[in-house]
Amino acid sequence: MSADLISKVDKEARKKAAEILRKAFLKLVEQIDKGELIMEIPKRTLSNTIYDEKKKLLLLGQEKLRRNFFDLNESKRFMQTILMASIIYDALINNEYPTIRDLYYRGKHSIILKSPGGKTYEENTWDEQKESDSVIEDIEVFTSLLREDMLILSKEKGKVVGDMRIRSGNDIIDLSKMGHGAYSIEPTPDLIDFIDVNAEFVVVVEKDAVFQQLHRVGFWKQYKAILITSSGQPDRATRRFVRRLNEELKLPVYILTDADPYGWYIYSVFKIGSITLSYESERLATPNAKFLGVSMTDIFGDKNKKPYLSEQERRNYIIKAKDFDIKRAMEIKNYEWFKSKAWSHEIEIFLDKKSKLEIEAMASKGLRFLAFQYIPEKVRSKDYIE
Amino acid sequence: MSADLISKVDKEARKKAAEILRKAFLKLVEQIDKGELIMEIPKRTLSNTIYDEKKKLLLLGQEKLRRNFFDLNESKRFMQTILMASIIYDALINNEYPTIRDLYYRGKHSIILKSPGGKTYEENTWDEQKESDSVIEDIEVFTSLLREDMLILSKEKGKVVGDMRIRSGNDIIDLSKMGHGAYSIEPTPDLIDFIDVNAEFVVVVEKDAVFQQLHRVGFWKQYKAILITSSGQPDRATRRFVRRLNEELKLPVYILTDADPYGWYIYSVFKIGSITLSYESERLATPNAKFLGVSMTDIFGDKNKKPYLSEQERRNYIIKAKDFDIKRAMEIKNYEWFKSKAWSHEIEIFLDKKSKLEIEAMASKGLRFLAFQYIPEKVRSKDYIE
Repeated sequence: MSADLISKVDKEARKKAAEILRKAFLKLVEQIDKGELIMEIPKRTLSNTIYDEKKKLLLLGQEKLRRNFFDLNESKRFMQTILMASIIYDALINNEYPTIRDLYYRGKHSIILKSPGGKTYEENTWDEQKESDSVIEDIEVFTSLLREDMLILSKEKGKVVGDMRIRSGNDIIDLSKMGHGAYSIEPTPDLIDFIDVNAEFVVVVEKDAVFQQLHRVGFWKQYKAILITSSGQPDRATRRFVRRLNEELKLPVYILTDADPYGWYIYSVFKIGSITLSYESERLATPNAKFLGVSMTDIFGDKNKKPYLSEQERRNYIIKAKDFDIKRAMEIKNYEWFKSKAWSHEIEIFLDKKSKLEIEAMASKGLRFLAFQYIPEKVRSKDYIE
Repeated sequence: MSADLISKVDKEARKKAAEILRKAFLKLVEQIDKGELIMEIPKRTLSNTIYDEKKKLLLLGQEKLRRNFFDLNESKRFMQTILMASIIYDALINNEYPTIRDLYYRGKHSIILKSPGGKTYEENTWDEQKESDSVIEDIEVFTSLLREDMLILSKEKGKVVGDMRIRSGNDIIDLSKMGHGAYSIEPTPDLIDFIDVNAEFVVVVEKDAVFQQLHRVGFWKQYKAILITSSGQPDRATRRFVRRLNEELKLPVYILTDADPYGWYIYSVFKIGSITLSYESERLATPNAKFLGVSMTDIFGDKNKKPYLSEQERRNYIIKAKDFDIKRAMEIKNYEWFKSKAWSHEIEIFLDKKSKLEIEAMASKGLRFLAFQYIPEKVRSKDYIE
């Protein structure tokens, strides 16, 4: 592999990560020399996941677990962690770009052991990817390196267009010159440099097809917007990219999803983080992202607001909520970050009307309506939910 | 909506499509004037789907259905077709970019009818999207316009990088300057102009994560390849884009999937077309696409070939085939286009070993191995299946 095939950015990133990884585990080795075969790792349990009111983020609490090599219940996990760390380290220094799937394969093998009595034992390092994934997460919290920092790649769904220039790898890319296509965000968005930007806000649409429509009709050109799609539940790279646009470029972020509990959850992952991977929130979440719509009051109105849909449009567009939608709404209602007055009102209307609506219904009123009336009007009049 | 927000290419495309649509339905109106309320539409049934041995494509046969407005069983479908055609026509002349989902919404309403006796009837235009989708397909075969020609947009998963320049919309895009990201293919790939290309072949990887790995390690630079991912089952735009690279630029196309019946089917959709939408094959399929791997002989070898995996690697990487894999393989075995000697051999090994393998396992042997040995060696030695 000739060296210039790989970007300089990557070489620096892997050097840095390898060093941090090496130091963290060297410390462990020193401990072991002293007879302490214990790893202290922040607990990634639900009970140690807290909603930080001030930061408005889901974060890991202070609890740590002490993984003891000499404890029979923990020694396997201890060894798995060391094995995975060494595989990741090898990948880093050998210019590899593993995925979590191939890290699972890289480490998968049987260890054969003979007892002094001559009996043979066989034990697999791991049998399922969820075991190796969990070990990767342990290493992330143990070293404070996210997997992306360690050049672990993944499938990517996020796309972006807008009037800005970025540097990625060895190239400068003009995101306003993508034609009818779009720029597909890289798996390691921290390695992107923002060069210059001529935009006033960011609109993130849940649905790729609606992104295509808004892009094609010129929405982002008309309103100086950066237009992004997460193509459903957002992946880590899209979340990090959005966070950086907000944090570093100070661009307000508006999230546009279907009007249903699944859409609210997508918004909440962007804003607060995901419950299962709360340790990444501090870098991946965008605490001041706003839910632009589609809101229940957009559909039904309330005493302060005229709805965007007529009685007849509602009849044609609305979908009856399923049992699992209702169940999901009841759960969401209990999350701390959905207990605000505005969200309570929203969830209340949903539970009362038992109705949901797709963004496509708004586009079917006319793409002009969606792009040049609904979205800009709501942004302008601050008709969003925090 | 100011006019210059929309590309010139699109304006010309919609003018052309509107004209064809108008003419086709004007003809119908003339017929109706003569008292003939009949639409003749090529039949989109399985029995009228034939495998054309010469073209090596799944195509619609000669059978046509005559949809008669005065037949009670057909009049609803007749009216649905006229309704949808008029909605699409309106969208075309009004600079709209509908999706099939919002076309469903655009047409959805209740028709209320009073009989002479005063009784009121209420009938919905359609209740589910599969009804409106089916009508769109009728219009496609009736007019020979694909939905993309009518500027109907959709979700897109396909990505590309490589040493080539294209024109899309008003922009020229250099697909070799995408940094660590990629170019996300537009929903209307027939509107792309190929400007220049410096590549010798096309590699299509089923899995997005493996695409990220091969891209990042510089595979396409090293071998003058155009690298594409379909992110799973390919969408129409990715298929059309690949077909155009093969047909217009004469680039050989190699498909790389997991070694399992699902992977074979992905290859077959690229090569032959899909069974349910055979009318598009003539434009979307790439009859001389080659299955590069991962093949069963790559895993197990045979009397002419040394396997790429050692006994131990097989033990660690292989996944036991599930019942549905076996069932799928039995079905695929009976497809005309899988009856060649090479494919029979492949399916036989699979049914014998009852084993499958993911591409990620090959990457876990080392990304260098996958990118700089396995793929180029197989291309060079023509170790692929037609």
